Amino acid sequence: MVVNDVGPRDGLQSQGKILTPECRSGLIKNLVNVGLTNIEAGSFVSPKAVPQMAGADEVFRSLPNTDSVRYAALVPNMKGYELAVAAGAHVVNVVLSVTETMNQKNINMSLQKTADVCVDIVKRAKSEGVSAQAYLAVAFECPFEGRVDPDVVRHYAELMNKAGADKIIIADTIGAANPASVRDVLSAVASVVSLEQVACHFHDTRGMALANILAALDAGVREFDSSIGGLGGCPFSPGASGNVATEDVVLMAQSMGFETGIDPLALVPVVRAAETLTGVELGGKSFRWLSKEADKAAGGDVNGR
Amino acid sequence: MVVNDVGPRDGLQSQGKILTPECRSGLIKNLVNVGLTNIEAGSFVSPKAVPQMAGADEVFRSLPNTDSVRYAALVPNMKGYELAVAAGAHVVNVVLSVTETMNQKNINMSLQKTADVCVDIVKRAKSEGVSAQAYLAVAFECPFEGRVDPDVVRHYAELMNKAGADKIIIADTIGAANPASVRDVLSAVASVVSLEQVACHFHDTRGMALANILAALDAGVREFDSSIGGLGGCPFSPGASGNVATEDVVLMAQSMGFETGIDPLALVPVVRAAETLTGVELGGKSFRWLSKEADKAAGGDVNGR
Repeated sequence: MVVNDVGPRDGLQSQGKILTPECRSGLIKNLVNVGLTNIEAGSFVSPKAVPQMAGADEVFRSLPNTDSVRYAALVPNMKGYELAVAAGAHVVNVVLSVTETMNQKNINMSLQKTADVCVDIVKRAKSEGVSAQAYLAVAFECPFEGRVDPDVVRHYAELMNKAGADKIIIADTIGAANPASVRDVLSAVASVVSLEQVACHFHDTRGMALANILAALDAGVREFDSSIGGLGGCPFSPGASGNVATEDVVLMAQSMGFETGIDPLALVPVVRAAETLTGVELGGKSFRWLSKEADKAAGGDVNGR
Repeated sequence: MVVNDVGPRDGLQSQGKILTPECRSGLIKNLVNVGLTNIEAGSFVSPKAVPQMAGADEVFRSLPNTDSVRYAALVPNMKGYELAVAAGAHVVNVVLSVTETMNQKNINMSLQKTADVCVDIVKRAKSEGVSAQAYLAVAFECPFEGRVDPDVVRHYAELMNKAGADKIIIADTIGAANPASVRDVLSAVASVVSLEQVACHFHDTRGMALANILAALDAGVREFDSSIGGLGGCPFSPGASGNVATEDVVLMAQSMGFETGIDPLALVPVVRAAETLTGVELGGKSFRWLSKEADKAAGGDVNGR
């Protein structure tokens, strides 16, 4: 099972505190050191719109160049694509919100225009030998339009798959999915794309992220986004809170016998370092327990925090 | 789907602050007012051992006598059974930890002796027309003996079922279950008891409680313990933290289309009142989101807490 940490991008971009490229690079290196192999390391968007991501090229250029890790970059347009590839991103991610209003409010473009841009980027990436992934955002519920019809998600999954996307990521941008809707959407998507090519991105806003992941695992999905310590949220999505925490996903996977290559206890110091960096309290639902276990393993006070 | 709030017993018994019977009764009335129909209202144990439960008879006698609500009492022995019935409990709960060491450490009795006591109480209850439920505690993992074989759980489920227990409650006392082990244990138990007669009790120590509930729902279980605001823990079980929060369970159930008769938003003021009563910060994983929604519904500040 693949755990893709999006903390350095999706997580950090919604934080009030803006971290230097060096700090962001440090966070990513921590993730690499504990075995994360898939990391969304930044986005090539306008630094005016998202100052948290300024200097993404610097971040990418500073990363350990190892064959075992794939660094992804979110790219909103062709210019961002070119910058990402020039900076050495292994994977480019495009984001297609599947409702009209979300596109208008979020990036001031029509859904059709965004879809065209995403298709163009994916096609060019594939023609240039670059891996490309397509996020379908607000795939369960849109903060402006409400519940999204699974057939709409199916339609855009097919569109991006035909454009050549290596992976389609079904994103519950505002954390409104539940296990039943996860099954409905994945069932619709599975009719046009093999679920081996599908990943899921859940936010833990309503506490159901791990249950949603279980529903997706049952359906056959084997790749999930998460962010270290649950870092994140989306500044453009009212009501969204953090991504599901990497440590929660890794612990559940390990408990169930799915191999992730990551020791959940090793994530504890990474969460603590991310807390120090961002100045916000982090940690998923399992973090208190993991911390205790990590302290015990280190020979520390069993009754400590 | 039935949600059984065990906050007034399992939740409160591990709190440092000891609440008067009047306060505990107030908490229970709050739960009744928002639609909880199954509540564990107290236990008839020695007030020396568990001072938090002193005056349980007073609590039971003060409760609104409505046909639609079933108040349960935990009883550790025949004397407790008699007191519970005299105080008007509708249901008596016996607890059988399924490992030797847990019984020795928890109540200083052998597993065999505890099983005998539980069987005797259930048989007497049934002969006297009292509803009786049997908890199988540490059914997934024992804090002293480690992982529990599902066949052991099956064995005691069969024993208690044969004794006449109306319900067998599979309890993850230390929050160590995962969806795979839930499936394993329920599959073993289903070979001796219909899952319609089975409930599950999860703690959210490792953040997997809702995923475990989903696994149990998929298996056919339709009754779950929870505690308001996630109140709780177990003082005798190292590493245990709170029960899964009632609001989290109700919200997931509602989202998935299972009827509980409870409006998750109506639970917000009950959680807040329980916080005031206990002096501890409460609230499940969905509580921040629910609070915002409840404030919005009340016409309050959308951006408030």
